[in-house]
Amino acid sequence: MVLAVLRLLHRIIRDKRMTTHLALTARAFGASSFFYSGDHDGGVEESINDVALEWGGVFNVEYLEKPSNFIKEWKKKGGIIIHLTMYGIELSNFIESMRNMLDKDLLVVVGGAKVPGFIYQLANYNVAIGHQPHSEIAALSVFLDNLSKGEARKKKHSDAKINIVPTERGKQAEANRK
Amino acid sequence: MVLAVLRLLHRIIRDKRMTTHLALTARAFGASSFFYSGDHDGGVEESINDVALEWGGVFNVEYLEKPSNFIKEWKKKGGIIIHLTMYGIELSNFIESMRNMLDKDLLVVVGGAKVPGFIYQLANYNVAIGHQPHSEIAALSVFLDNLSKGEARKKKHSDAKINIVPTERGKQAEANRK
Repeated sequence: MVLAVLRLLHRIIRDKRMTTHLALTARAFGASSFFYSGDHDGGVEESINDVALEWGGVFNVEYLEKPSNFIKEWKKKGGIIIHLTMYGIELSNFIESMRNMLDKDLLVVVGGAKVPGFIYQLANYNVAIGHQPHSEIAALSVFLDNLSKGEARKKKHSDAKINIVPTERGKQAEANRK
Repeated sequence: MVLAVLRLLHRIIRDKRMTTHLALTARAFGASSFFYSGDHDGGVEESINDVALEWGGVFNVEYLEKPSNFIKEWKKKGGIIIHLTMYGIELSNFIESMRNMLDKDLLVVVGGAKVPGFIYQLANYNVAIGHQPHSEIAALSVFLDNLSKGEARKKKHSDAKINIVPTERGKQAEANRK
């Protein structure tokens, strides 16, 4: 199985931090790839790759010129498209069946400012993380955290250069001696 | 009980969208108040108040000049300070005891760029949502969603001006006739 995230309609100035945080969220909650469309942004890619190098694991960032073709290909190969939108059906109705799909390739799609209508049509599931306005980062993290029942976020990477030493007060990190 | 969020060190240009999304996330996942320190930002407050007015419920946004005094007062009155930081102890170790604290006033604190050391000392709990770098929005949403076992995000507000009509494909919303 593959668990990947696609962020639609990145805008180079306005969305730099949002998209970077989305990618880091994807990585921290168990996805192995992050795709994005909209503006091509070398700066965002570099930030994400820097984090992945320092904190370990395999994480792939890729720009897509034509996300609709990519989504169609993904489906043609038997993969599943999950589009997160406040207009969809609430997660709690889906989560069990989604956990049973983890042997398939899952692509989790999050908007952008104005998600085109065909995304709602192409998606196998339009899933709402509640029906209130909040944040694509919140939607993605809550979705992925629920998908793994809170397990993915606890994963350690043996090839990390630094590790946090969990502590009750203060900040402690150590170089990974492995 | 009160459930509130404090965002430290807001910067007026760089953090406008992050802080707005944090506040909307606080609201959508069950908090009733959002406090922030750093730069005073009327634009952010207006965005949040506009959303709260349209989507209903009571949600209070307030700027704090001296967050440390505010935190000390909160504790003095018997409230609990939960600081979200990747350096803390993982959420899974805390979550049950935190759900048992819901009769108290909980203040969930999230950083900013450089959280001063005294926050780690003042907090009753320094809680990590995993130990990987991701996003304060992800941390807040996963924390609050876990706290309510996924219930808070499903709440509807009877005084909302519009409501989403959950649908399998597409976007449907209706004016609240109540």
